[in-house]
Amino acid sequence: MANYLDTFFAAMADPTRRAVIERLTEGRAPVGALHSSHDIALPTFLRHLKVLEASGLVRSEKKGRVRIVHLEAAPIAAAEDWLSRQRRLWEGRLDRMAELAQSLEEFRDEN
Amino acid sequence: MANYLDTFFAAMADPTRRAVIERLTEGRAPVGALHSSHDIALPTFLRHLKVLEASGLVRSEKKGRVRIVHLEAAPIAAAEDWLSRQRRLWEGRLDRMAELAQSLEEFRDEN
Repeated sequence: MANYLDTFFAAMADPTRRAVIERLTEGRAPVGALHSSHDIALPTFLRHLKVLEASGLVRSEKKGRVRIVHLEAAPIAAAEDWLSRQRRLWEGRLDRMAELAQSLEEFRDEN
Repeated sequence: MANYLDTFFAAMADPTRRAVIERLTEGRAPVGALHSSHDIALPTFLRHLKVLEASGLVRSEKKGRVRIVHLEAAPIAAAEDWLSRQRRLWEGRLDRMAELAQSLEEFRDEN
């Protein structure tokens, strides 16, 4: 899991790459159309796509002269799982501490 | 939101930093105790902690000669929100496409 999360989170740490993900949630798209909404050189944009493909987040296939890119939801779900597990563990701990503080207060009031 | 997600995801893209987060879900801890479970030099470890603090994920305060580190859940929740929004949009789209394909098949069967 370690390596997978490394490449996933690194892929998500860039605004251009996140914008591509947001665009792809609306449906698959050709590389040219994806690039046209970004004010960067094509080779730079292709490097961003490569990082996304390496992370497993997007797949692409060639149809004639056009390369079509689409999203893969599974890696997103796996990263979400990791994050939500950490948050729930931490929040659970805070809840138990709050309960403990409450019990302590009640004990003090009664004694 | 762009800059915040940049630093958050970059902070999560390293196994040492994720291990610190996992450890901190069990409760706040002094820097020395956190460092002791990692086989890296202290200055390197302190740089990892700095990256985590810069992302808002952890906070630390000095108590006497010891620096205590704890987790902040809010940035995790915000990143989770972004990821789950993308996943739901994409899955929603796949569901609508599946419904469309189903309707088309039923139409064909009836005609």
